[in-house]
Amino acid sequence: MTKDVEVAEHHGAKDYHDPPPAPLFDADELTKWSFYRALIAEFIATLLFLYVTVLTVIGYKSSTDPLLDLDQCGGVGILGIAWAFGGMIFVLVYCTAGISGGHINPAVTFGLFLARKVSLVRAVMYMVAQCLGAICGVGLVKAFQSSYYNRYGGGANTLADGYNKGTGLGAEIIGTFVLVYTVFSATDPKRSARDSHVPVLAPLPIGFAVFMVHLATIPITGTGINPARSFGAAVIYNNDKAWDDQWIFWVGPFLGAAAAAFYHQFVLRAAAIKALGSFRSNA
Amino acid sequence: MTKDVEVAEHHGAKDYHDPPPAPLFDADELTKWSFYRALIAEFIATLLFLYVTVLTVIGYKSSTDPLLDLDQCGGVGILGIAWAFGGMIFVLVYCTAGISGGHINPAVTFGLFLARKVSLVRAVMYMVAQCLGAICGVGLVKAFQSSYYNRYGGGANTLADGYNKGTGLGAEIIGTFVLVYTVFSATDPKRSARDSHVPVLAPLPIGFAVFMVHLATIPITGTGINPARSFGAAVIYNNDKAWDDQWIFWVGPFLGAAAAAFYHQFVLRAAAIKALGSFRSNA
Amino acid sequence: MTKDVEVAEHHGAKDYHDPPPAPLFDADELTKWSFYRALIAEFIATLLFLYVTVLTVIGYKSSTDPLLDLDQCGGVGILGIAWAFGGMIFVLVYCTAGISGGHINPAVTFGLFLARKVSLVRAVMYMVAQCLGAICGVGLVKAFQSSYYNRYGGGANTLADGYNKGTGLGAEIIGTFVLVYTVFSATDPKRSARDSHVPVLAPLPIGFAVFMVHLATIPITGTGINPARSFGAAVIYNNDKAWDDQWIFWVGPFLGAAAAAFYHQFVLRAAAIKALGSFRSNA
Amino acid sequence: MTKDVEVAEHHGAKDYHDPPPAPLFDADELTKWSFYRALIAEFIATLLFLYVTVLTVIGYKSSTDPLLDLDQCGGVGILGIAWAFGGMIFVLVYCTAGISGGHINPAVTFGLFLARKVSLVRAVMYMVAQCLGAICGVGLVKAFQSSYYNRYGGGANTLADGYNKGTGLGAEIIGTFVLVYTVFSATDPKRSARDSHVPVLAPLPIGFAVFMVHLATIPITGTGINPARSFGAAVIYNNDKAWDDQWIFWVGPFLGAAAAAFYHQFVLRAAAIKALGSFRSNA
Repeated sequence: MTKDVEVAEHHGAKDYHDPPPAPLFDADELTKWSFYRALIAEFIATLLFLYVTVLTVIGYKSSTDPLLDLDQCGGVGILGIAWAFGGMIFVLVYCTAGISGGHINPAVTFGLFLARKVSLVRAVMYMVAQCLGAICGVGLVKAFQSSYYNRYGGGANTLADGYNKGTGLGAEIIGTFVLVYTVFSATDPKRSARDSHVPVLAPLPIGFAVFMVHLATIPITGTGINPARSFGAAVIYNNDKAWDDQWIFWVGPFLGAAAAAFYHQFVLRAAAIKALGSFRSNA
Repeated sequence: MTKDVEVAEHHGAKDYHDPPPAPLFDADELTKWSFYRALIAEFIATLLFLYVTVLTVIGYKSSTDPLLDLDQCGGVGILGIAWAFGGMIFVLVYCTAGISGGHINPAVTFGLFLARKVSLVRAVMYMVAQCLGAICGVGLVKAFQSSYYNRYGGGANTLADGYNKGTGLGAEIIGTFVLVYTVFSATDPKRSARDSHVPVLAPLPIGFAVFMVHLATIPITGTGINPARSFGAAVIYNNDKAWDDQWIFWVGPFLGAAAAAFYHQFVLRAAAIKALGSFRSNA
Repeated sequence: MTKDVEVAEHHGAKDYHDPPPAPLFDADELTKWSFYRALIAEFIATLLFLYVTVLTVIGYKSSTDPLLDLDQCGGVGILGIAWAFGGMIFVLVYCTAGISGGHINPAVTFGLFLARKVSLVRAVMYMVAQCLGAICGVGLVKAFQSSYYNRYGGGANTLADGYNKGTGLGAEIIGTFVLVYTVFSATDPKRSARDSHVPVLAPLPIGFAVFMVHLATIPITGTGINPARSFGAAVIYNNDKAWDDQWIFWVGPFLGAAAAAFYHQFVLRAAAIKALGSFRSNA
Repeated sequence: MTKDVEVAEHHGAKDYHDPPPAPLFDADELTKWSFYRALIAEFIATLLFLYVTVLTVIGYKSSTDPLLDLDQCGGVGILGIAWAFGGMIFVLVYCTAGISGGHINPAVTFGLFLARKVSLVRAVMYMVAQCLGAICGVGLVKAFQSSYYNRYGGGANTLADGYNKGTGLGAEIIGTFVLVYTVFSATDPKRSARDSHVPVLAPLPIGFAVFMVHLATIPITGTGINPARSFGAAVIYNNDKAWDDQWIFWVGPFLGAAAAAFYHQFVLRAAAIKALGSFRSNA
């Protein structure tokens, strides 16, 4: 398979084209309805994401609480919670990809900004819209589940007992790396040209990446890998422990996203090697 | 990504076309076999939907009843029930999309009617077919599970203890919004033109949307988001509580579908902005 | 959506073509390597199907047996068993569709024979290959799980206590209807032409249909909907009850497949209406 | 369906072409950045694979340990573990297929080498990269889960009590056969030409194949079917039993991969028949 790839790349005319890097500031963007529509789409998508996922978390805990003498196996389980996070990302990226790019996550926006896929002003405004959406989504859960919301931890991300801050930070970094690496792989313009046997089906593997990371790290941090998700739950739950650990859920995902952007742009896309003109003898 | 979108839209010649709005009354429709075939397909699909899903609900409860001293972990779990609802919608939308559009849900039909995708007469007849199919599907479950059907609540939607009517209505509105928003996103004619990296794979995200909403709201309302599903179970179970709460499972989904239709048509597709001629400087 | 369909159909030149019906006897077929290759592929696929699924059933029961004082929640659950059946069908239909059509089930072969998609000789030989494969697959499980195979019911299909034969037969008929209806929908030549928003992704919905039916009817019959699967397990388990109920798992699936073939060919594809020349005013 | 296949094959001009076999040694390969990039991609992908999956295994066991008086239903379950393995393979094959072919498994590399899809030097270097990645991935889990890693078996593959070595070897052979058979089916150049109703969606069925095999054989061997996965866990866990059984997890997968390569190349692709010039009367 890789052989064919070589052949395609060795010809002078590449069979794909990279869009030019996004400018840092693009005043023109601000005059277009499509920009505001994208902000609305990010707001609504993050709201729905937090609403469904945190409602699943609270509903699971409320239906399996041993103190209430309930059936401990009666809820959707941690597997169900992981599905809620991964499945919602699949659905919402599918729905909003054509409107806003379907980020729904400041870490994804940050990674795409570093790779110059979105302008600085768009990146900042997206993050604001995502955080506001997350607050509203968790707020709805609190309104609907008033009797259980605070009792069951509010869906907030905190470091579990027995794990130190370094472990939590590491888990967030690697988890976000998996997600943002998948996002880059799925949206690579080289993809459709090169991988004839791997069709571009972006939202499904992105959703699965989120699902997988939740299976692995729910016992450690509850799994953030999305600063808007962690921030929204912290604002509504407003608990000291959630605020004390909050930095982990911003620093970790941003570092992970930066590592994924670096890995994709400089290693896999070989931007550094190409810049040095080294190694390759392409005509 | 969004940059490319802009470019495509700024050219005078759009690379997609919107079909004209469906007429309210289309007498011609009634003379065609394909119209009646679509009604049959909606009837059969809703019958199979209710049959499989309610059978899963009753089977789960019958194999984990602690009063019968049964293994509490022996059933498919609430996660399995959520899969049954979401998975059947995936399969049935896949099978019937080419015949009837694959609604299988009066709320979806209502949303598509509001967006002028189907005529009024087709919308009404679809809803009748869906409700009859649902009644027959639940009737089959009662016939097959006679000893358990009534004991385990008949698969009917009711408001759980501890939640007020406003919460139940809100949960149904937002849940149906998620579903109908996904339906609109998946069937948007702009989609295939615009989203080169997001192929149109409509039934899978629609099924996942249903799966996700069930994970989140089974503890609150049992999850309706489909008036035919709630109505069919209420008719066969015929319990006072199910009938008292029935309005929630019609008003909620219809409001949610209307909100999704409005959001898609006026915000994302910017029909309002375009009508005002404002804001955009397209040549 | 349906509107477009009409338009496409009303033009004289159809945008798809139906292959001619398969002959009942096709002597030519028997002289080709591809025929024997298809038999081998059906044999191997059914072997792997039974091997993985029955091994999952036995492994689940062996790791949750309360008599052995084991953790009752320690296995994959009935949800995991349903995934095993549905997921294997997805994988194996995907792998063998290009070689043999990917039936892996005498009921599917029977339905496709009734619709004249395969010749009689091919249908009979496929069923023989499928049954032999199923016997070998279950035989491998017995060899690997000798200490548990007989203790945990051998993966055989039997009617559960408390259900009468009519219920079991009905459950098998409707379950197989769901499966074979999905198979017909997925392989319809009209599909790719007509459903621009519903791409042809045949093996995934077929696998999900199997998954769904298992969720619903494992508590009633253990879910056959595949006579080779029921026959193979009965041969290796060789238990009176399994043999007494065996007819249900042949008559039910064959009736369900026949109903699905009739529904698809005469209702959805309107073969009867077309033959009568009625109703439609196509130019 | 199969009829059409015949027709296509009987014409002199085949509608697909097989790439030429890869040379055993390809010195040219070693001078290209893309070769080293592929090694890096295999290293990172196998690292992430082991990190997520073994973390899921340890996290599951740590949150359900009855000795710690924990909720036995509180973890993701064996179903969740099977999802972790299958889902990660889906995501990672999706991400790396265009860079390295997406093997992430020495048995897959070995099978593709036997079929002459990759050169010997590439095969050996891939296996080294995969094993190093696996060691690092499990090492990260040990660093993050120091208090639980050794207590819960380190995610290492060993033969469960009550099964003999022959059973374990057989389970690994057949399990790897399922996986590598799916890989061959998914990447067959004949596929896209022949199977108009079965689109090429390679990573999803490959991931499901891994998921299915884990459901079936976790109770027997913990499921290897990937020598790098077994080796990496053995190195970090460094336990006598894990080393004693290690040969099973190399011999089994390599035999299974060889069987799948033979089955695909000589039976399904009929290389042997074609070489003998027998049987077929193609013009």
